[in-house]
Amino acid sequence: MKILRVNMKEKNVRWEPVPKEYEQLGGRALIAKLLLGEIPPACDALGPHNKLIFTPGLLGGAIVPTAGRLSVGAKSPLTGGIKEANAGGTAGDTLGKWGIKAIVVEQQPAPGEFSILVLDGDSAELVPAGDIRNIGTYATADRLQERYGEDATVISIGQAGEYLMSGAGIAATGERDQRSNHAARGGLGAVMGSKGLKAVVIKKALGKAVRMHDDKLFRTACKEFAQALITSPKLGVKGSQHLYGTASIVGAVNEMGALPTRSFSSGRFEGAAELRGEKLREIILAREGKVGTRCMPGCVIACRNLFNDKEGKPVVGSVQYETIGLVGSNLGLDTLDDVATLNYMCNDFGLDTIETGAALGVAVEAGLAKFGDIDSLVGLLRQVGEGTVVGRMIGSGCVTTGRVLGVRRVPAAVGQAMPAYDPRALKGNGVTYATSPQGADHTAGNAFGARLEVNPLGVEGQKELSLKLQIIAAMLDSTGLCLFARPPIISKPQLMIDMINGIYGWGWTLEDYDRFNREVLRTELEFNRRAGLTPNDYRIPEYMREEPLPPHNTVFDVPDSDLDSVFDTL
Amino acid sequence: MKILRVNMKEKNVRWEPVPKEYEQLGGRALIAKLLLGEIPPACDALGPHNKLIFTPGLLGGAIVPTAGRLSVGAKSPLTGGIKEANAGGTAGDTLGKWGIKAIVVEQQPAPGEFSILVLDGDSAELVPAGDIRNIGTYATADRLQERYGEDATVISIGQAGEYLMSGAGIAATGERDQRSNHAARGGLGAVMGSKGLKAVVIKKALGKAVRMHDDKLFRTACKEFAQALITSPKLGVKGSQHLYGTASIVGAVNEMGALPTRSFSSGRFEGAAELRGEKLREIILAREGKVGTRCMPGCVIACRNLFNDKEGKPVVGSVQYETIGLVGSNLGLDTLDDVATLNYMCNDFGLDTIETGAALGVAVEAGLAKFGDIDSLVGLLRQVGEGTVVGRMIGSGCVTTGRVLGVRRVPAAVGQAMPAYDPRALKGNGVTYATSPQGADHTAGNAFGARLEVNPLGVEGQKELSLKLQIIAAMLDSTGLCLFARPPIISKPQLMIDMINGIYGWGWTLEDYDRFNREVLRTELEFNRRAGLTPNDYRIPEYMREEPLPPHNTVFDVPDSDLDSVFDTL
Repeated sequence: MKILRVNMKEKNVRWEPVPKEYEQLGGRALIAKLLLGEIPPACDALGPHNKLIFTPGLLGGAIVPTAGRLSVGAKSPLTGGIKEANAGGTAGDTLGKWGIKAIVVEQQPAPGEFSILVLDGDSAELVPAGDIRNIGTYATADRLQERYGEDATVISIGQAGEYLMSGAGIAATGERDQRSNHAARGGLGAVMGSKGLKAVVIKKALGKAVRMHDDKLFRTACKEFAQALITSPKLGVKGSQHLYGTASIVGAVNEMGALPTRSFSSGRFEGAAELRGEKLREIILAREGKVGTRCMPGCVIACRNLFNDKEGKPVVGSVQYETIGLVGSNLGLDTLDDVATLNYMCNDFGLDTIETGAALGVAVEAGLAKFGDIDSLVGLLRQVGEGTVVGRMIGSGCVTTGRVLGVRRVPAAVGQAMPAYDPRALKGNGVTYATSPQGADHTAGNAFGARLEVNPLGVEGQKELSLKLQIIAAMLDSTGLCLFARPPIISKPQLMIDMINGIYGWGWTLEDYDRFNREVLRTELEFNRRAGLTPNDYRIPEYMREEPLPPHNTVFDVPDSDLDSVFDTL
Repeated sequence: MKILRVNMKEKNVRWEPVPKEYEQLGGRALIAKLLLGEIPPACDALGPHNKLIFTPGLLGGAIVPTAGRLSVGAKSPLTGGIKEANAGGTAGDTLGKWGIKAIVVEQQPAPGEFSILVLDGDSAELVPAGDIRNIGTYATADRLQERYGEDATVISIGQAGEYLMSGAGIAATGERDQRSNHAARGGLGAVMGSKGLKAVVIKKALGKAVRMHDDKLFRTACKEFAQALITSPKLGVKGSQHLYGTASIVGAVNEMGALPTRSFSSGRFEGAAELRGEKLREIILAREGKVGTRCMPGCVIACRNLFNDKEGKPVVGSVQYETIGLVGSNLGLDTLDDVATLNYMCNDFGLDTIETGAALGVAVEAGLAKFGDIDSLVGLLRQVGEGTVVGRMIGSGCVTTGRVLGVRRVPAAVGQAMPAYDPRALKGNGVTYATSPQGADHTAGNAFGARLEVNPLGVEGQKELSLKLQIIAAMLDSTGLCLFARPPIISKPQLMIDMINGIYGWGWTLEDYDRFNREVLRTELEFNRRAGLTPNDYRIPEYMREEPLPPHNTVFDVPDSDLDSVFDTL
């Protein structure tokens, strides 16, 4: 395997063999180690010293189902700490097949100079972006696939990233005409913009496969893992996650009173029934959209959808839970058509829907638009593409929007907007938001699935639960596995160990595996410490600790001492 | 003496005797102790737990010349740390004469509810602001003096504070029709806005005087102090500070290459001759404006001016050095008329000219206006009063403006804009910016005056110099003394000790005095530590450590180890 170093100042590329210390790393684990070792943690996130990393997980390119996610990492301009965000699509699988452990983008050109990186196995070059500028991620992907082949993967930023908005994400294409897989969080699109990198094109790795150290060991484990997914009641073809995708939980979160509603002022939305996964499926089927498709090659869960408008024309895919929560109920919108409209715009501009939904909610609170009024919200969001100051404010996320508009009800931790679980009604997620080195991020340790084991409204057991989940999340994000695919690995970690040993021959034991996962968090925490983040930067905002959330009228009351000791046993 | 507590939620006031622990404190020292003791340092600066304090210095109300400054303090929404800013005018003197050690404003009303505090000696009440809303500080002062008497002091915020913009300051009136003394820095105007307090009216303390413990001791010291000021070559009637005010140093700072020019991209401005103090005096005299007037009762330096337009109509007073640097050369403007135009607008909106000039420079870098083009700059600044998003962004200061616009050349430390000395060419000030608990603030320890003792371009001796100056600044800001009046006290600290002992009878020794001054800094540093600030929050921005500043082409290269050890001997 090898690493591609791309110098955006000198405009050159350089292959290097994988240094020994990075050999047994991938995805989020590699990002953590590389950033801690190679950049000054206190550096300017949008300056020349930051590095932007694209890396598949350790299973990337092998035939493990749902394990082809692409990890993107850098110091975050949003949180000031370390960030890894990952996306489906074909990038992770393709990089793995090409034997590329990471693309590391370094330095930066003069402001306003943009290039495209074109990668074809062993050859790589930077070409000027030319007229691929100031356009959305859809047009970018279309034009580049026209030029480089329909089966090429395109990773790109939209206008948000070009303008260095810190709510900007990075989009990646999938199989065929699939668009809009997003490494959305933490403003990594702005880092890509600061590097003057409009897009990365990766040609298909035709006829390439990952070399196996012990094919039999790998295949046995992989088969058992796939079977476990297929036969799972939740994940299999009759399972709610296959049928309704991530939106399957809208009803349950609303029921438990944790669904962000009107800028996190309630946990229950009277229009939630219209936003449920069941409704989503019903509408999509009626309009001949798509349900049950996959976002990554070989995925057997296939939770993805493509949402059509009333005329049957595709709007956006995949409409997901967090988006429904943040640009739907959080903005008082009670139709999936409205959600899809905002979702498409975010995806095309290259914006994180979570961050943007939260920012729009803050803007509504300041009187710039109205809850439930799609036209006023579209009017604000449209300006992101136009690059107006209003658009750039919204695109910079909820904390900056709150600062400009003097709004203190800003649902963020470590500078990053909260996903669609109000921490006052799902306190385990609150602990994750307030302790994860990734900032407020449900993928860093989502307690929703454990709501029957640990009372979501109680304080007890939350810190232990969050730590457990954060360790699992670190493993998922380092191997390229989708969050949905975690149950078989949690039940039987040996499956993961066997797959990794089968591919690489590292002879990992359960202890090595556990140490690996914990080391990811330790490294990230150390990065953030050196970056100057303190416990106060992580805290749940003051208003959520004092303003009761209907319908349970609870506040976030996990004591600071619990938060500060989450990692004591790491 | 007594303290007035004002509860903005309950809309009531309460007098209390001065608690023992605050007895020997005033101004900045009282603010530090009170905030550390009474508010959670990690609280939301614009939330109910912050407290806004108005307090005269220890000499306030006595007849000490140039010692009537009003200190205002709170946790800063701009820096996230503690903040004290002070202003001339009649407030400090009047509060001292009324025997009021502090007004402490607590809690907050529902958003949008504004009141006015009216104070007449022992009686105080909150009245609804009524139509005194959404107007500038000039109109506010006019209307309130009409209502409460021409000799009442009016402390107020403009639109910037009402909108909670974190670049908002607080204006205070002076003798007769004098306006625009500003406690400008750190966003204290936004804190006042968050308390729903549009203005404080203080009726004149007719026939009141500070009770003296030892009148003779006081008078002897006070007389010697006044004589020293009057006979000083710099401060006396033939002195440059009396003749040209703070603007007397424009030429010297430009000559040394430290004058902020075009958003801190050069330290020398080709148009500086047109901005010099000599030119300022010449224009003002030609237009029959005022020079050599005082901002506080009894001041013998009298450095204040009133700038008239070409028709001889008053524009703004006092045009000062930092304003000339930040809204003049920093914006490429080379006429004092342009400076006065922006200065007036900032004063009326209730904005810090330093923060706003820096924010405008950042906006120019992003293409929103042009250097040297007053119309485009006025077009941006006007929007502060209109409350547009553009205006609110500019009014929120340079860091927020940089975040929205994706500009990384942001001249700030601890979130606050730098005054008019580029730290690359006056490194002692860089050390102060990067270590003072007050953030980038020249009044916290200005090395300009020591430029002949310590080479401003060198590293050696800067940290020792900064510490010495920071200790002196803490003393000045706690006693109500103007920065200009420091030389006699530095030469002979016993003068200060005698004046304080004369008034209060505390029997201070030189040791007590030194301990007092140092304790201010220690308390503030502890507040900031608990608020979660780390050395990384204080650092000079990356670009200033890497981008050489013409004409000397130096970077800020005082090592972190020097910065981190400034207070080792505190």
